[in-house]
Amino acid sequence: MFYHVKQLQYNAKPTRPDPVYAKKLQEVLGGQFGEISVMMQYLFQGWNCRAEGKYRDMLLDIATEEIAHVEMLATMIAQLLDGAPAHDQDEAAKDPVVEAVLGGMNPQHAIVGGLGARADDSSGYPWNARYIISSGNLLADFRANLNAESQGRLQVCRLYEMTTDPGVRDMLSFLIARDTMHQNQWMAAIEDLESTQGSIVPSTFNQEAEKQEVSYTFMNFSEGEESKSGRWANGSSFDGQATFEYDGAPKPMGQIPFLQPGPPYLHGTAPEEMRIQQGKGKMEPPGQS
Amino acid sequence: MFYHVKQLQYNAKPTRPDPVYAKKLQEVLGGQFGEISVMMQYLFQGWNCRAEGKYRDMLLDIATEEIAHVEMLATMIAQLLDGAPAHDQDEAAKDPVVEAVLGGMNPQHAIVGGLGARADDSSGYPWNARYIISSGNLLADFRANLNAESQGRLQVCRLYEMTTDPGVRDMLSFLIARDTMHQNQWMAAIEDLESTQGSIVPSTFNQEAEKQEVSYTFMNFSEGEESKSGRWANGSSFDGQATFEYDGAPKPMGQIPFLQPGPPYLHGTAPEEMRIQQGKGKMEPPGQS
Amino acid sequence: MFYHVKQLQYNAKPTRPDPVYAKKLQEVLGGQFGEISVMMQYLFQGWNCRAEGKYRDMLLDIATEEIAHVEMLATMIAQLLDGAPAHDQDEAAKDPVVEAVLGGMNPQHAIVGGLGARADDSSGYPWNARYIISSGNLLADFRANLNAESQGRLQVCRLYEMTTDPGVRDMLSFLIARDTMHQNQWMAAIEDLESTQGSIVPSTFNQEAEKQEVSYTFMNFSEGEESKSGRWANGSSFDGQATFEYDGAPKPMGQIPFLQPGPPYLHGTAPEEMRIQQGKGKMEPPGQS
Amino acid sequence: MFYHVKQLQYNAKPTRPDPVYAKKLQEVLGGQFGEISVMMQYLFQGWNCRAEGKYRDMLLDIATEEIAHVEMLATMIAQLLDGAPAHDQDEAAKDPVVEAVLGGMNPQHAIVGGLGARADDSSGYPWNARYIISSGNLLADFRANLNAESQGRLQVCRLYEMTTDPGVRDMLSFLIARDTMHQNQWMAAIEDLESTQGSIVPSTFNQEAEKQEVSYTFMNFSEGEESKSGRWANGSSFDGQATFEYDGAPKPMGQIPFLQPGPPYLHGTAPEEMRIQQGKGKMEPPGQS
Amino acid sequence: MFYHVKQLQYNAKPTRPDPVYAKKLQEVLGGQFGEISVMMQYLFQGWNCRAEGKYRDMLLDIATEEIAHVEMLATMIAQLLDGAPAHDQDEAAKDPVVEAVLGGMNPQHAIVGGLGARADDSSGYPWNARYIISSGNLLADFRANLNAESQGRLQVCRLYEMTTDPGVRDMLSFLIARDTMHQNQWMAAIEDLESTQGSIVPSTFNQEAEKQEVSYTFMNFSEGEESKSGRWANGSSFDGQATFEYDGAPKPMGQIPFLQPGPPYLHGTAPEEMRIQQGKGKMEPPGQS
Amino acid sequence: MFYHVKQLQYNAKPTRPDPVYAKKLQEVLGGQFGEISVMMQYLFQGWNCRAEGKYRDMLLDIATEEIAHVEMLATMIAQLLDGAPAHDQDEAAKDPVVEAVLGGMNPQHAIVGGLGARADDSSGYPWNARYIISSGNLLADFRANLNAESQGRLQVCRLYEMTTDPGVRDMLSFLIARDTMHQNQWMAAIEDLESTQGSIVPSTFNQEAEKQEVSYTFMNFSEGEESKSGRWANGSSFDGQATFEYDGAPKPMGQIPFLQPGPPYLHGTAPEEMRIQQGKGKMEPPGQS
Repeated sequence: MFYHVKQLQYNAKPTRPDPVYAKKLQEVLGGQFGEISVMMQYLFQGWNCRAEGKYRDMLLDIATEEIAHVEMLATMIAQLLDGAPAHDQDEAAKDPVVEAVLGGMNPQHAIVGGLGARADDSSGYPWNARYIISSGNLLADFRANLNAESQGRLQVCRLYEMTTDPGVRDMLSFLIARDTMHQNQWMAAIEDLESTQGSIVPSTFNQEAEKQEVSYTFMNFSEGEESKSGRWANGSSFDGQATFEYDGAPKPMGQIPFLQPGPPYLHGTAPEEMRIQQGKGKMEPPGQS
Repeated sequence: MFYHVKQLQYNAKPTRPDPVYAKKLQEVLGGQFGEISVMMQYLFQGWNCRAEGKYRDMLLDIATEEIAHVEMLATMIAQLLDGAPAHDQDEAAKDPVVEAVLGGMNPQHAIVGGLGARADDSSGYPWNARYIISSGNLLADFRANLNAESQGRLQVCRLYEMTTDPGVRDMLSFLIARDTMHQNQWMAAIEDLESTQGSIVPSTFNQEAEKQEVSYTFMNFSEGEESKSGRWANGSSFDGQATFEYDGAPKPMGQIPFLQPGPPYLHGTAPEEMRIQQGKGKMEPPGQS
Repeated sequence: MFYHVKQLQYNAKPTRPDPVYAKKLQEVLGGQFGEISVMMQYLFQGWNCRAEGKYRDMLLDIATEEIAHVEMLATMIAQLLDGAPAHDQDEAAKDPVVEAVLGGMNPQHAIVGGLGARADDSSGYPWNARYIISSGNLLADFRANLNAESQGRLQVCRLYEMTTDPGVRDMLSFLIARDTMHQNQWMAAIEDLESTQGSIVPSTFNQEAEKQEVSYTFMNFSEGEESKSGRWANGSSFDGQATFEYDGAPKPMGQIPFLQPGPPYLHGTAPEEMRIQQGKGKMEPPGQS
Repeated sequence: MFYHVKQLQYNAKPTRPDPVYAKKLQEVLGGQFGEISVMMQYLFQGWNCRAEGKYRDMLLDIATEEIAHVEMLATMIAQLLDGAPAHDQDEAAKDPVVEAVLGGMNPQHAIVGGLGARADDSSGYPWNARYIISSGNLLADFRANLNAESQGRLQVCRLYEMTTDPGVRDMLSFLIARDTMHQNQWMAAIEDLESTQGSIVPSTFNQEAEKQEVSYTFMNFSEGEESKSGRWANGSSFDGQATFEYDGAPKPMGQIPFLQPGPPYLHGTAPEEMRIQQGKGKMEPPGQS
Repeated sequence: MFYHVKQLQYNAKPTRPDPVYAKKLQEVLGGQFGEISVMMQYLFQGWNCRAEGKYRDMLLDIATEEIAHVEMLATMIAQLLDGAPAHDQDEAAKDPVVEAVLGGMNPQHAIVGGLGARADDSSGYPWNARYIISSGNLLADFRANLNAESQGRLQVCRLYEMTTDPGVRDMLSFLIARDTMHQNQWMAAIEDLESTQGSIVPSTFNQEAEKQEVSYTFMNFSEGEESKSGRWANGSSFDGQATFEYDGAPKPMGQIPFLQPGPPYLHGTAPEEMRIQQGKGKMEPPGQS
Repeated sequence: MFYHVKQLQYNAKPTRPDPVYAKKLQEVLGGQFGEISVMMQYLFQGWNCRAEGKYRDMLLDIATEEIAHVEMLATMIAQLLDGAPAHDQDEAAKDPVVEAVLGGMNPQHAIVGGLGARADDSSGYPWNARYIISSGNLLADFRANLNAESQGRLQVCRLYEMTTDPGVRDMLSFLIARDTMHQNQWMAAIEDLESTQGSIVPSTFNQEAEKQEVSYTFMNFSEGEESKSGRWANGSSFDGQATFEYDGAPKPMGQIPFLQPGPPYLHGTAPEEMRIQQGKGKMEPPGQS
């Protein structure tokens, strides 16, 4: 169960309205790697957690913090929208600033949201639950989390560069710092799990059942061999069980596919010798067969 | 540019049709972490790559391999569908096997696809491009890739457990092995990049501009302190720059939000003292102001 | 900012696993009118609120409660999934119960979620942000909220009827009761706002600017006049400003549309006399004009 | 069955082209609360109606009118697009009006639609059927309809303010007036149904089966008690069955959740004492168990 | 503007309820090639039509008919759902027919729709406006229409085979016949347009501006030359302007791509010699540059 | 299986960056009729093909070529993005060119993609698999393919007109030429199939089972008879089996629909005489019945 306090986790006060920037800032609120994504991802990982308590507790700690980040961004965006113009195009054409705003702001911020934040990304696409990852395997999911915090910090840093508003930058500097922590946190949690179960997900699948002759081979399907010089093609594998190999000219190992003709009642295209000319040699009336 | 050869990378021959399993197998073809996702993700990362050639080449090697994995799965699914029944419900009710199939197969496999594979997941939801990640920052993206191969191998292992068909298992054992390699590969590529630029994404953002007092603090927003015992709350941080701290009772650091009333022409709800009773004290006709 | 406590708002303990029911219960977690929808809707309405404090506070009260409802449902679903079978189709066909489960459960619960709840609806479609409504006009939004609690309680009641598990029913009886309160609450909040501003949304638009001759007329576009007997065609209007009229045979009041031919550089189809035969009378090379 | 006449229900003639405004106007054609939504919602409610004839007839009357509204908006948008420029960026930069248009119009209006209206909203997002509501419970659905007409009239009023084109405003004044009627209509239809069955949806669920001790209590989950002063926390409830109560400090009533470890064949993360180190103590080969 | 009459265009009366079949039948109501798609496609093509009147009139004729087809299918589905069971899983397991229904019906038909038709396809995915095509070029669009009627008739024929209910088959026999007409109709309309403008879309683009040396060459990118025997590689081209050629071994004609490093403020990965080690050689504080 | 070579199929080198044009060009990369659509459509049609080898081979030839087209477009877009400005709004307002760019470019190109191409359309909407068509009936699918190449060439021609950059136009002239070939190719393949099976899809359905009295009648549902003059209402039908008829005043042939009241446990709205007043005459407690 949750409780809410009125203060924000950190200040969210722009120095001045900027509706075009509000549109951009939506990316880290409602985008693929926005705060709604990490909030929902950590909540579901926490609620679905079947491992020991320290993981569930940690997941719900950070999930609860992320709700506060969503709150900060929504509050910031609502204030950035304060300066949205209502003027029509004729008047706007006389004023280059209004003009740029007309072209650049998200029309839904005014028409649909009445100057409120939306749960969408910077192109106006709505957040959806296929963004979140909760697999029941914590090592897999912590890798997802490390990625989410990496993409997230990258996007916030880019948005930091796109404004000079000190109030906006102050808030972003807080989010960037928390993402520094959260990248560190997931690296720590990953090391913790790898040390008890190994580094390949899932660790419990019997490796004898995999086709082991291709488990450590880099295959060169693209002309040129620049890829041969990478660490991924040389030295011991990262699960400590083998040595990387490089196959410069991989060959197919499988069959040439051949599909049976489909059953007549699905009315697909059969090979020519089985095809039926319309109006000739009709099938029996359907349902009779 | 690409060329195609007729053989599959590895065999894709089921021992017998199984339309219900075909529905499940769609997950690793067209799901969030199916082969279409990694194929498209690696292609776009390769084409968008602005770093040195070994990365671009490596990305296009693995991307090209993934097209072949999509091909294997599509071929397998088309064959698994060969046994789909057309019978109607009345007849089906007499035969428990047909019955289970009727209930369990994806109706679009017959009605829409005519017993062909679809680019959808196991719930029939179409693959979409918001699944893929290509940020221009390779360390971020390689973490996305490691996650994708972890989730992917996990799902293929689960599907391996859900069948006893030796032909299907043979193909899956190949995919599982390649995912072992690909997890190893991305771990290698990550180490490679971290060694030249550090482990926090992005490494080029000036850390003096972040709110450094919260960059290494774990905050306990959830009742109970099990989370205190984790590696993430103890010892040196993973970027080698600080020591983790634990804040057992984090306090808000921000303002209580307050939003200005919106402009009248957006017709939102203002505070009570500014509200207007319908039919009384009307605004000027719109457009006059 | 938010805090989390470990106990659930109310018990969420099924008497026994039931993976097929888990799929159905997803509707009120991640469906159009599931708990995620009301949680997100009330959060955004609260954060975007530009009216006096009692509305913002009330919205965040109920929003915070709804996070706890999402938590209860996720917890319940994870437990209902405990009995998911892994067996393949052959074995299943021998056991009618397993068979029904194989056909009826959501395959993603096992393959993707590892027996965890998902943020999807009962057909496996992901929750998305176009479900939520936050317009800046509280009367409009409170009507949306009354609808959401009406659809929500209806769905939970239907789900109550679809199980006999006492543990599940106990939890649902709590959610149904809270939806009784929440319907009452939004009716109260609507009355409160209507009394200060009138009942037509938005109340601030100058009604002289609307085409008032059609503001109170019911138009009969469908053959037959059963619709004439309704309250909507008789007596005084609900905004207290007029009397309903019934137009039994509405006539068009507008023009017959006619569109200009498009510009040549868009290559649409023009009227026949302007069409150009391929390979004859070609346009100037593009870009020259 | 339906018939079409050539005239529009009301005039749809802009005074001049305005492709940027055309983009905005798409919101009330193909947005969440655009005319397509109400057209489809009323059609499906009418076709699915299991109550007496006056409701079905009324629903199909208004549904049929809404098809005409979709027609008017599509016609208007096609004409507003007549002035779309084809010039490229270099030339555009010299002319600030063209420039604003280039930035502000929806590129799909030219590239995909050839200057035709689209069934999308103002951010270019396609209309989808999850917008519509048809539950089989008319009281619930009429509340949805009242909301739809409230959000719809609000958006049309906002769009009215964003143009000074007399032709566009003339058409919008008609739509605003019809939305005045339709809000009145749904209020009438709601009163009609509440008088025969009560105000809580669904009225047929046995209230003894709900957890009645929380059916009339407002819970204060958010710091501060401004919410205590609202009508929703004082006086008799709106279903006439109780008195509102205010719980200033709600306590959890449920268990601390605990989930069982998942089955081994799903390869999730189990508690530490049950975890298996990769390459050691392997499970039996899968499928043997 | 539109009018509605109460009778259906043709009978829609099932002989008995069949909720599992209702789920399948949704495909031709709300699927990619269902009746909603053609209804909306023809309406928008008609409203957006800039060619002479016979095309607009014809498009609105068929569009208006399609609304009636949507009505017939919705009516049929609502009746097929009459037999939906409410029983829970325990009881169901005792009755194999109920069991199949539980597994096979769309849970949203009961929980969300209250036994009403939905605007979704047979996998429960909602209809969306990206299915429809209206390009302003009628020849392109009539080809889209011919395809839609081909896919549509194919799906209805498949659904005909999947039932033996005489009432359902009677209605489908009507839809199949209309699709026969509509395929004929679009073939006629295509011939009509091709005769006045040629067969390549768009006909107005100056072909001198296209890279004509590859305008009539079939390229063999896939191992083997079976494709050489087709009509597409032999004889005169269908626009009457050239002869098909076959390139058995197509070679790349373009550059090896090379992308410039991105600007520093986007924090992407640059080539190694430009990369910056975290904590060393920092950039100037952002915003200073 | 596939192999990649480093050169592009044709040059993709813009003369100068143009981030606004990059946004537009996304349409033919990731839009409904972009290169990803045809690549995936032809791949799946090829892999699912159950007809003779020349079709499968031809499909995989063209599919493999389309991967190269996706590559060219992605490469072009990444280069067009090179000039994206990072400046904030204040500075931008001083510079009209930057301003237009700020308003006109897709913000995700910078924030999310780091100046890389995305798999989205020109409104930022992600590519999804519901765009592709693979039905198992090749005649139906080849009509889909002819449409795709028609819409595709139309869009590329429009984009050609919207730029004067010689490098961009050079690449587009190649794509336009290939689309000329591909339209010719699908016309050839359609003729090929129609000659062996007839022109109505599917040809194998027994036409005696369709309601033949309406198989060749054009129905005039829209006021006015302009549509009577078209080829579709005169002369012999295109399947060579009948003569077109014109029904100037089509009449309904079906019943007036009537739906049974739903079962009580679904809590829908029944006819008035069956409705239950809340709190009176309650049903038995649920689950007892």
